[in-house]
Amino acid sequence: MRSADVSLVIANSRHNVRYLSGGYYYHFHLNSTRMARSQYLPFLGIPRHAPEKSFYVQRPDESGQIEAEGLWIPVRVEALRGTLTAASSLAGRIRGMGLAHSRIALELPFLPADAFLALRAELPDAEFVDATPLLEALRTIKSEGELLIMRQAYANLAEAIHAAFIASRPGETTMEIAGRTELEIERRGMSFLFALVCAGPGFLRAPSSARWEPGQILHIDAGGSDREYIADICRMACMGEPSPLAKELHGACIEVQDLVRSKVKPGLRCCDLLEIGEKASRSYPFSQYARFVIHGIGMVPYEPPVFLPPNESTLEAGMVLSIETDFIHPEVGHVKIEDAVAVTEDGCEGFGDKGREWTIIG
Amino acid sequence: MRSADVSLVIANSRHNVRYLSGGYYYHFHLNSTRMARSQYLPFLGIPRHAPEKSFYVQRPDESGQIEAEGLWIPVRVEALRGTLTAASSLAGRIRGMGLAHSRIALELPFLPADAFLALRAELPDAEFVDATPLLEALRTIKSEGELLIMRQAYANLAEAIHAAFIASRPGETTMEIAGRTELEIERRGMSFLFALVCAGPGFLRAPSSARWEPGQILHIDAGGSDREYIADICRMACMGEPSPLAKELHGACIEVQDLVRSKVKPGLRCCDLLEIGEKASRSYPFSQYARFVIHGIGMVPYEPPVFLPPNESTLEAGMVLSIETDFIHPEVGHVKIEDAVAVTEDGCEGFGDKGREWTIIG
Repeated sequence: MRSADVSLVIANSRHNVRYLSGGYYYHFHLNSTRMARSQYLPFLGIPRHAPEKSFYVQRPDESGQIEAEGLWIPVRVEALRGTLTAASSLAGRIRGMGLAHSRIALELPFLPADAFLALRAELPDAEFVDATPLLEALRTIKSEGELLIMRQAYANLAEAIHAAFIASRPGETTMEIAGRTELEIERRGMSFLFALVCAGPGFLRAPSSARWEPGQILHIDAGGSDREYIADICRMACMGEPSPLAKELHGACIEVQDLVRSKVKPGLRCCDLLEIGEKASRSYPFSQYARFVIHGIGMVPYEPPVFLPPNESTLEAGMVLSIETDFIHPEVGHVKIEDAVAVTEDGCEGFGDKGREWTIIG
Repeated sequence: MRSADVSLVIANSRHNVRYLSGGYYYHFHLNSTRMARSQYLPFLGIPRHAPEKSFYVQRPDESGQIEAEGLWIPVRVEALRGTLTAASSLAGRIRGMGLAHSRIALELPFLPADAFLALRAELPDAEFVDATPLLEALRTIKSEGELLIMRQAYANLAEAIHAAFIASRPGETTMEIAGRTELEIERRGMSFLFALVCAGPGFLRAPSSARWEPGQILHIDAGGSDREYIADICRMACMGEPSPLAKELHGACIEVQDLVRSKVKPGLRCCDLLEIGEKASRSYPFSQYARFVIHGIGMVPYEPPVFLPPNESTLEAGMVLSIETDFIHPEVGHVKIEDAVAVTEDGCEGFGDKGREWTIIG
């Protein structure tokens, strides 16, 4: 907050409300906020010099859950249904705190436009800036408790993908396989996010009427979340024995991934790690089909650290990295392994490593 | 669009994009839009006098799915990741259509503030108004295809609640019962929205560590959706035989609900139907604990028709109504039945009527 020079930071996205609240979100709107002509909109505010004056703008019907869960926020402000009443209650609270002339950070990419216009009308002398970079920076280093959630989420996701593979039958559509992946993720207590399913040769990753036939490879690149923390991995299977070329492509994915993992340690520049992965993925006879990507992951699928130069970030213990190697080959299909590692004091720990080898069906 | 006097209407919420597209939405972001410091933001625009110039602002990686599903929108405009690039692509399209000086309807309660500011900066002579009332009006009368989805969604939801009841054991927490309800909804191919679970006496409806003990009543008031169409019902169960008073309260719920249903037909004023239900719910010795609510339902939990006077709307065939009768009794707990009916040419059809009677456990 000091670097952003703001007097008050306000979370208004579901993930950042849950991050700052310690997990709380109104269960009734966890999966859908829309209601009548508007939507549910909570605000969680933390003043720079007075965390004991942190406040939460809520609907009256949240109170039972808030009390049952013991939300830490000391001040609660009620607002009736919808974005405009929420904005008006927030404006009242800001005036009451004497901050009507200050610089205030809100999540502008997640704040409804009508609420923004109402805030600006009610607080014409306030300056509103984007809270997203500040909140993103807060989330970069994961605590032990967060790592525990992510470790389990990745393990569950790897199990779910494996279960979806082994229940597959020849000729099933990628839509059916995606549906099974969804259910396997949900059965393990996670929220389903997405399942990209690609039967190769052929590059369509959206679930469709494309069929997985004998001899074809297939990847499932799926995401799920637990308490907003995202897990996202990609695994390979083949309906029958993979071709020698398919095996080579997969072997190269594992080789690149493992080389990158072996270099991870605190203090390494992120852009250097990216270069190691890019260089490794370019060292094969089929490297014209290669893609290498690395990014931070947590409550948001792409979050710090930043790997692209000229950024000079270095790895720190507690960061979680998603590492992806693809070979998108016209004769074989889309071969991809995506994994995650948590940076530790002296290296890294793989999350959800089950099933990095081929799963052979039939 | 004529009544709102706009040249262009733009959907930017998930549900209205799917409504206007005929079901399409980018599967990768169906369950979570957040990405890096921003979020996924599609725009579906329909010009007033030229539906053949309707356009869709998309991410490049959506194209495979769009082609596989045969999206009807003739013009596609690409935008890179995030709210600002989407807004910029939209502004370019609007300028290209010669509409930079016109009145444009967008869903302001769902449009990110940063995208709104970018649009206003790029199109300083356009006037932006809220598209929500216009889109809500379009959705009020459901087609046969929509009724088919909703009928099945309600049937699935009623089955899911029943399954969650009968698998319950004495002393389970409402959190456990809510979790089972979620999974039973998902197993039937629906998206889980919420489960309010209340063991009585006691009025906490948020899933918690409260236990369902022998002799206690319990309600599950749950919501799920299929292709954005929402189903929402409440059912009663008892761990053992309900008390005579509990039976009376539940009998009164059914009586009020059935009386209201018997009056539903096209042409009736909505406010008159509300009054019938309110009056019936006030006719019992325990009416001080009564609440009666009726509202339209479809892609949004509360949508037209409007029942509160002075609104003069009348019922029309193809509307779907959610009808709720509660008795919130200090000695018994929260007794509630919520049902839905579709208005037909000569009356109404109940959706998901399974389990309106008590479900007795043990």
